[in-house]
Amino acid sequence: MIVVMKKGASREEIQHIIERVEALGLKAHPIFGTERTVIAAIGEKRDEHRQSLESGPGVAEVVPILAPYKVASREVKAESTVIRVGSLTVGDAHVGMIAGPCSVENEEQTLSTARAVKAAGATALRGGAFKPRTSPYSFQGLKEDGLKILATARAETGLAVVTEVMSENDVKLVARYADVLQIGARNMQNYRLLEAVGGEGKPVLLKRGPSASLDELLLAAEYVLNAGNPNVMLCERGIRTFESHTRFSLALASVPYLHDRTHLPVVVDPSHGTGHTALVARMAAASIAAGADGLIIEVHPDPETALSDGYQSLTFKQFVDLMILCRKVAAAMDRLI
Amino acid sequence: MIVVMKKGASREEIQHIIERVEALGLKAHPIFGTERTVIAAIGEKRDEHRQSLESGPGVAEVVPILAPYKVASREVKAESTVIRVGSLTVGDAHVGMIAGPCSVENEEQTLSTARAVKAAGATALRGGAFKPRTSPYSFQGLKEDGLKILATARAETGLAVVTEVMSENDVKLVARYADVLQIGARNMQNYRLLEAVGGEGKPVLLKRGPSASLDELLLAAEYVLNAGNPNVMLCERGIRTFESHTRFSLALASVPYLHDRTHLPVVVDPSHGTGHTALVARMAAASIAAGADGLIIEVHPDPETALSDGYQSLTFKQFVDLMILCRKVAAAMDRLI
Amino acid sequence: MIVVMKKGASREEIQHIIERVEALGLKAHPIFGTERTVIAAIGEKRDEHRQSLESGPGVAEVVPILAPYKVASREVKAESTVIRVGSLTVGDAHVGMIAGPCSVENEEQTLSTARAVKAAGATALRGGAFKPRTSPYSFQGLKEDGLKILATARAETGLAVVTEVMSENDVKLVARYADVLQIGARNMQNYRLLEAVGGEGKPVLLKRGPSASLDELLLAAEYVLNAGNPNVMLCERGIRTFESHTRFSLALASVPYLHDRTHLPVVVDPSHGTGHTALVARMAAASIAAGADGLIIEVHPDPETALSDGYQSLTFKQFVDLMILCRKVAAAMDRLI
Amino acid sequence: MIVVMKKGASREEIQHIIERVEALGLKAHPIFGTERTVIAAIGEKRDEHRQSLESGPGVAEVVPILAPYKVASREVKAESTVIRVGSLTVGDAHVGMIAGPCSVENEEQTLSTARAVKAAGATALRGGAFKPRTSPYSFQGLKEDGLKILATARAETGLAVVTEVMSENDVKLVARYADVLQIGARNMQNYRLLEAVGGEGKPVLLKRGPSASLDELLLAAEYVLNAGNPNVMLCERGIRTFESHTRFSLALASVPYLHDRTHLPVVVDPSHGTGHTALVARMAAASIAAGADGLIIEVHPDPETALSDGYQSLTFKQFVDLMILCRKVAAAMDRLI
Repeated sequence: MIVVMKKGASREEIQHIIERVEALGLKAHPIFGTERTVIAAIGEKRDEHRQSLESGPGVAEVVPILAPYKVASREVKAESTVIRVGSLTVGDAHVGMIAGPCSVENEEQTLSTARAVKAAGATALRGGAFKPRTSPYSFQGLKEDGLKILATARAETGLAVVTEVMSENDVKLVARYADVLQIGARNMQNYRLLEAVGGEGKPVLLKRGPSASLDELLLAAEYVLNAGNPNVMLCERGIRTFESHTRFSLALASVPYLHDRTHLPVVVDPSHGTGHTALVARMAAASIAAGADGLIIEVHPDPETALSDGYQSLTFKQFVDLMILCRKVAAAMDRLI
Repeated sequence: MIVVMKKGASREEIQHIIERVEALGLKAHPIFGTERTVIAAIGEKRDEHRQSLESGPGVAEVVPILAPYKVASREVKAESTVIRVGSLTVGDAHVGMIAGPCSVENEEQTLSTARAVKAAGATALRGGAFKPRTSPYSFQGLKEDGLKILATARAETGLAVVTEVMSENDVKLVARYADVLQIGARNMQNYRLLEAVGGEGKPVLLKRGPSASLDELLLAAEYVLNAGNPNVMLCERGIRTFESHTRFSLALASVPYLHDRTHLPVVVDPSHGTGHTALVARMAAASIAAGADGLIIEVHPDPETALSDGYQSLTFKQFVDLMILCRKVAAAMDRLI
Repeated sequence: MIVVMKKGASREEIQHIIERVEALGLKAHPIFGTERTVIAAIGEKRDEHRQSLESGPGVAEVVPILAPYKVASREVKAESTVIRVGSLTVGDAHVGMIAGPCSVENEEQTLSTARAVKAAGATALRGGAFKPRTSPYSFQGLKEDGLKILATARAETGLAVVTEVMSENDVKLVARYADVLQIGARNMQNYRLLEAVGGEGKPVLLKRGPSASLDELLLAAEYVLNAGNPNVMLCERGIRTFESHTRFSLALASVPYLHDRTHLPVVVDPSHGTGHTALVARMAAASIAAGADGLIIEVHPDPETALSDGYQSLTFKQFVDLMILCRKVAAAMDRLI
Repeated sequence: MIVVMKKGASREEIQHIIERVEALGLKAHPIFGTERTVIAAIGEKRDEHRQSLESGPGVAEVVPILAPYKVASREVKAESTVIRVGSLTVGDAHVGMIAGPCSVENEEQTLSTARAVKAAGATALRGGAFKPRTSPYSFQGLKEDGLKILATARAETGLAVVTEVMSENDVKLVARYADVLQIGARNMQNYRLLEAVGGEGKPVLLKRGPSASLDELLLAAEYVLNAGNPNVMLCERGIRTFESHTRFSLALASVPYLHDRTHLPVVVDPSHGTGHTALVARMAAASIAAGADGLIIEVHPDPETALSDGYQSLTFKQFVDLMILCRKVAAAMDRLI
């Protein structure tokens, strides 16, 4: 890292920081510029000691040079990670298509959706049994009964099941039924939960928090990777901005940016990313053009009566149209759906 | 709520929505405007059914009229809630002053800080034993050993102890030592944790997530209140914006806004809210002028060697200066510190 | 619009607002709900009187129902506007490809770029002669000399010229040389400038300000349209958010959203929208998949020595690759480049 | 500045960048770290050449060390600038109180307001004659007639007049009547306008754009200062964020931050910064506690009938209450109103 001294920092202050850097086991390399002195601190694997230098006397700021994450970094593992679980492949030439209802409401709703999305070409089924809801008055999910319905849908259709786990205490239970454990955006920095899914054998779909930087997303992934689970898919689902015409802002440059920095595959959620049924298909196509390795899409037999997220769910017919569009774009990008 | 139909919505579409509204047990009241038809839905306590109407045919949008929260609302309880626990009073004429280190590092560091902040006039001690850290490589806290040190500091100084709990599984443990259970910004929507602290008897300090709207903060409080715990302090600690000169943006209008909408007291954290030692005292003073019922401030014997957040921690001397300033402003506002 | 009264608003307050609404020439339609009274105000073409009602006694808020813009609205003109000027068509099946240097630096640099982008398939040339620069110490453009160079490039290549005008006093001058008058993001709400380009016969490329809402963008377009110029292209170029890995956040859902609300064509600028050469091609492809009617791309013979924006400019070779990719995606979307 | 090379940058790439740095007249100082090579470029007054190095081969990023602004910097002029014009002093111990209507509507409205704010202790009169309005359908101001009314109000009350100029072509006209030329937030980067007011002798009140960084604000001030006008007041008026309960987010830490970096005084606008009458007084008090050198406040004889911004304007009575509160807080801060 680079410690930038204030203009007019005294000789003693500069010497003090040099000693502090060396006390941290690093080599201090001062550079006396025209206007300011900067001190390069050499020898770290990450800029861990940044914070402790920032409050030193005469220090203006400390500029990190190294990425804060390690195991997730493409510098450590150049080859892209591909996740394969049952019917679902995410990464490589494959664009995984995960589709299904926001919430598992009952067997009929879930099975009919599973059949419809399978017929249209989806390669995995999504559906929430444990639902994190902003309001305590909203439908909270069927819990284990919902997981059983998902398992039934997998048995019938062969689709791998992606479903959210909200509590470290439910990880074992959800892992018994699910193929992929989803960590929701609200829990991206619930570290006990990240460690718990890191200790399971099942792949993890890690959603970006709505105000998380990409470094923070990768550090959250690092919690899972460090706990022993190498199969993490990152999921871009939109960030919170001043723009209110969409539910979140789906800024897709994160896809090529992440591909440059990490070997982990990137899935996009255009349903939450836009919050409006009418915008989902276009943004699904755009996601694939941006290089997404997978999509996760909300589909419901009758969005108008959905217990959650109906305003962003597609009908079966709309999902078929989306698949047709996405397949054309995927072909243009030399990807397979 | 008000259902706004699209321009040119058909008679059938309008009729369909009227029937949907009535099927929800509400009274539908259509208004035929010059440009559009809107349908008022009357009879709810909250606009719960908004989502389900939003995907109806011909619907442009659904506009909520009622606040989504209930128990936290000043409309339900006009009188301001005052939290009193040991040495700490938050609300009423009192501005609670919670100060201490970011992390409990060892007994000497914590006790010396407790003595110093007590001498300067703080009314509670903060200090993290369980530390949620963005990076898995950062110091994660002393856990139960840290809680014991906090209890020792309380025994010696008489200061009430405010400390974070990160996992629903640790709630009982933390509640054994703490006077106030802090929910960190990253866990504001960790609903299982909110329910768990809602089931304890201890007051809760609930920090706003960096991209949480004020409605979402109040709904998170509602999870705690509904679980049976009426003693919730809201904590404004800055939101994430494009501004990068400060760690977060401490937009203090949330203080008078919240006072208008809720009976719960509002605490401000100018340490996280700014992220720079040099800005803390001014923003502490500004918080009191904005009407804050309490402040929570990071103080460390030697910020340069702190294991976390040194760049935003005050020295003992700086904290004394802050207290002098805050007392003058509090007096101007007819508040007591 | 809908006036929402506070809970507990008095009979007199409600009566007062009804009278105020009627004094505005509107019909007041009160609805007495379970919790609150709302008053619908009927008869407007736009919700112009919203502000004046918001400060009435007992009023909680005023909810607009109608879009604030009119002439730009698809409700007023259902058929999409297509802009045709010289070699450039934006809208219809055509995706206009506008490419060239950030700044016109000299004749050789501009002509070589014009030839290269033309050969690769661009349909218009961009290049700045008047440069709005954040810093007064940065290169400010060649001004009229730059315009002459652009005209020379058009004469040689046949490419229509798109260039920025920064001052109402320069509109006549720039219009003498340019085919399309560009309004930069910093000037999106420079109303005297908008009116001035509205009075010219040349098409306008109106860039979205980095914190402008889409309604504000459409109202800015409305200033141009109302001044008599129907040929406005909207340009999405990224918004300012907390995300710092990209220069701006290019949230492409604005493309289908705008297509739904306005008949004006939408161009995307992935160069400013990302700020990094490495991200431009993917986001160009994504823009087309999202439905963009045109792209505007920075290309430079030697980005490393560019006087402005080198870090986001493509080399000739990179632009050829981008064109190949974009053509494939355009074909998948049934569009022509 | 510091050029950070990519991990694995080749010897040739590093040598190339060293040569590029030296070709810019700077001294290149390479540091070979454990993971990466960085090259310090020494000798600049500002990091002007940053952009041109960012697109070099093997370059990961270029980190600026020096502030981009110069004349506005406290490093160049340590002593705080104080603006004195007629009845108004901004800076030093004085907190300038600028108050008046959003728009000049007629003589009676403006004069009665001027008398009322003067009686309450205001030291300058605000009022818009040229109004930049988001919608072309909104009231656009009385123009020169409005300026004349302001001059009449000054003649009667002795209050200095602060009013906005929107066009470079109106600068002479406005300067004939006004004591302080206001640049609105929408025009913060209208460089021709900044240069034009820089060429006038009258002090300038420069409002921060809603998505402008503080560096951008200071660079905008630098355009005015460099044109020869040293009397610039910066004005914080809130930034645009996801928070929708307030019109903008008034993050007051910019006040002490700016005081640390620049010698220019800082005025706060809590009327636009909050957008709600009920929040103005508290945020005015908070602004003074944060160290503001002045406030600018909207006041109207009858906010309900105001032609603009009624929802954030104070009545005369509310302004008196605000002054009483602000005087108490100012006294606590050792400031004078």
